[in-house]
Amino acid sequence: MKTSPKLYEQVAEKIKTQIDRGILGPGQKVPSVRRFSRQLAVSPFTVVQAYWVLENKGLLQSRPGSGFYVAIQGPLEPPEIQPKASLPVPPFQRMPFDKKVMGEVVHYFSDKNLLLGCPFPDPRSVPASFGKCLDRARRQLGPAVLGFNAPPGLKELRVQLARHYFHSGLDLRAEDFFLTTGAMEAMHLSVLSFLNPGDTVAVESPCFIGFRTLLDCMGIKVVDIPTDHRYGMDLGLLKKALGRHKVKACYAMPNFSNPSGCSMPDENKKALVEMLTEREVPLIENDIYGDIYFGKARPKPAKAFDKEGWVMLCSSFSKTVGMGVSVGWAVPGRRFTECIGLKVLPFTPSAPLLEKAFANFLALGAYERHLRQVRKMCEDNLRHYQETIATFFPQETRTARPQGGLSLWVELPRKVNILRLCQETAKLGINVNAGGVFSVTFDYSQCLQLYFAVPWDEKVQKTLKTVGELAKKQLVEKH
Amino acid sequence: MKTSPKLYEQVAEKIKTQIDRGILGPGQKVPSVRRFSRQLAVSPFTVVQAYWVLENKGLLQSRPGSGFYVAIQGPLEPPEIQPKASLPVPPFQRMPFDKKVMGEVVHYFSDKNLLLGCPFPDPRSVPASFGKCLDRARRQLGPAVLGFNAPPGLKELRVQLARHYFHSGLDLRAEDFFLTTGAMEAMHLSVLSFLNPGDTVAVESPCFIGFRTLLDCMGIKVVDIPTDHRYGMDLGLLKKALGRHKVKACYAMPNFSNPSGCSMPDENKKALVEMLTEREVPLIENDIYGDIYFGKARPKPAKAFDKEGWVMLCSSFSKTVGMGVSVGWAVPGRRFTECIGLKVLPFTPSAPLLEKAFANFLALGAYERHLRQVRKMCEDNLRHYQETIATFFPQETRTARPQGGLSLWVELPRKVNILRLCQETAKLGINVNAGGVFSVTFDYSQCLQLYFAVPWDEKVQKTLKTVGELAKKQLVEKH
Repeated sequence: MKTSPKLYEQVAEKIKTQIDRGILGPGQKVPSVRRFSRQLAVSPFTVVQAYWVLENKGLLQSRPGSGFYVAIQGPLEPPEIQPKASLPVPPFQRMPFDKKVMGEVVHYFSDKNLLLGCPFPDPRSVPASFGKCLDRARRQLGPAVLGFNAPPGLKELRVQLARHYFHSGLDLRAEDFFLTTGAMEAMHLSVLSFLNPGDTVAVESPCFIGFRTLLDCMGIKVVDIPTDHRYGMDLGLLKKALGRHKVKACYAMPNFSNPSGCSMPDENKKALVEMLTEREVPLIENDIYGDIYFGKARPKPAKAFDKEGWVMLCSSFSKTVGMGVSVGWAVPGRRFTECIGLKVLPFTPSAPLLEKAFANFLALGAYERHLRQVRKMCEDNLRHYQETIATFFPQETRTARPQGGLSLWVELPRKVNILRLCQETAKLGINVNAGGVFSVTFDYSQCLQLYFAVPWDEKVQKTLKTVGELAKKQLVEKH
Repeated sequence: MKTSPKLYEQVAEKIKTQIDRGILGPGQKVPSVRRFSRQLAVSPFTVVQAYWVLENKGLLQSRPGSGFYVAIQGPLEPPEIQPKASLPVPPFQRMPFDKKVMGEVVHYFSDKNLLLGCPFPDPRSVPASFGKCLDRARRQLGPAVLGFNAPPGLKELRVQLARHYFHSGLDLRAEDFFLTTGAMEAMHLSVLSFLNPGDTVAVESPCFIGFRTLLDCMGIKVVDIPTDHRYGMDLGLLKKALGRHKVKACYAMPNFSNPSGCSMPDENKKALVEMLTEREVPLIENDIYGDIYFGKARPKPAKAFDKEGWVMLCSSFSKTVGMGVSVGWAVPGRRFTECIGLKVLPFTPSAPLLEKAFANFLALGAYERHLRQVRKMCEDNLRHYQETIATFFPQETRTARPQGGLSLWVELPRKVNILRLCQETAKLGINVNAGGVFSVTFDYSQCLQLYFAVPWDEKVQKTLKTVGELAKKQLVEKH
């Protein structure tokens, strides 16, 4: 026997209809409990019950002290990027990187309006104070601008970096750092310092494509360890993989991973480091987004839990200040000496001018001030992205909820052919990354990676809307 | 029956005694024929005969229209760095690079007074005009200094490079170049663009250690092809090696090789390129010293003989302008697209500021003017080195006679233990490279590599003299 819907269910249905019709848009406040109860002539408690039902369904969000709002992600749940822990241990793989195809798509990067595909901040968003620090460095150095900062690089900057990390809960000395031309070089040197062709590395999955490419060039195999949007890398499966394969190293971005946006809670970072330390397996930690957090405090790098030097922290200023003034660093623990030796020989020395400019920038406190702007801008951008996706993308679209970083992972309904979507956007000069490239073990073919690094404006909005409309068009065609 | 020495032999002996006693020093003019014939009361022809004998022995050098001079290298012959062509084909090898040892010696590089071990020009020797070009680039770029020059890099600079090479007999377009952070990165990308772990590369021997290290890190095997000081790489042996091993690439510095200083004549470059083209084997050509020539004209790169795109030319400004403003390039022929693809992903973008500064520097003609100074300085330095070595090093020391570049290859008598010598100089903060590190197939353990990049002064002279005296001390101890 079917019972008629309860009163609060009827009320909930009313709101849902408004949302479905787009009358109540994502992020908009729904009528206050008091007003709505008067309007419908029901008790305030009935309205509250209705709102709770909708909140449980993910349609509304309550903001304490402010009321109920249409959830920014509408009915979205984060994509199920984690296969369940009952999965078998993934086999190791080589993910062949097609250098030629990559070379052919480089012209997208030449477009100064990368927008959704731009993985670094807009130069316009960097304060004039950095320019001043650069000019000051030029004057301070004089002819030495041409000279050579022997590895580990300018001490002044390493002192500043040690101070910077101290505020992130890391107790490092200037002597623990060495400077590079970027995080990618820091990881490259870390890899070369102890890995050889034929070795196996466990990587979080989906995995930053630059790192996978590097491993592929080196003839290194990977084991994909799936990621959970709440806990990051699946430590249970990692443990199994460590037992099954001869894993020589592990790679992860415990804070705001590229591309998934996932983060690991501190206790998981600690467990990860302990698990690897016990087996003497180094962790290559890419912490490049760590400073772009939206929460109250800078999340700790996994390095903060490293007692025996098995974590190799890698990062740079390229995601917070600019790609054109790329200065990076590594804190490679036990492999410090080997990294320095490699930096001297088959690599290029770093530019004294840029190292000095950053030393000035940090010493003045200007980097910290700049970071506050970056964090605010990126968090705003993300909210705009989520609203726009909820409004203009197909209804079943799900988006991750990164708490920092620059990368948004989006899952589209099965009926959308992502490769076709990417081809269509590419024709319009819109650069988005198809999820399929981030793994060969797992199927991310329904996912897209979008970057939210460029300040939000009408052009970005229009571009994002276009992607959604192209996806919707595919759905309509099929019906 | 022993005949008494002929008159001209007696005259020759007199001069030789003066040279042996150091009364007539290297480079000094010996008495004119007319004056000496009067002084000794012999015919001028007897003196000429004596001088010819000494010239044949390498003790004197005649300078047409000027007279006879004590040979700068005294009795030195270039080291026999070429095993004879009857040698069997060398086996392929891996030359393990000890990253830890390298890392431990890095502190030598921290010494701003590298002197004999300094492989790049003194910042003081670079004209103020470069600084002005840098400052101008800074003003021109404004906030774009932080931005991103997508590969292949700033077109303006690629146009200038194409013009620069046109004067070297190379007909290239701006589209043929891609810019890197240095020649090492250019070679790194070239290697990754088509080589895989386990492949075999034929390299000139002795071979630049940076390139060997790169191959070692990549798990790539090498076949050492010996070098002749007149012809460079032994093409007969290379041909045999190409037949014997599955050689996937060849590496050479046809102009002023590091470390040997050897150059290839144009006909050999041509033959090399033809031999490799026929077999579709790429040549990675390191032309970093090509602009530092002491002769009348810029020697052609092997690339000038490349009709089908199998030569990958790599170079940079780091040996002519400075390590701290490192901008390099490659002209990778057939592998252009793959190199660009790699530059985007596992490498670091180049700095727009430096690319723009060099575009300005070349456009103004200031680079060409600067090169004239560099060539003169290096040629003068080399002469001073050769004189000082002839005077203060053990008598049987032999030095190469590079016609350009920055590297001087020196062979010491068997009785000198080079490793001990290097340890002793290291204790005094003097950085010289032991020859043994440049090959595992051939024995260069009696050789030293010295750089003559730093302007000659009393300090350099004293340092070089100290090396010679330490070597002589070993000889004395053993007698």
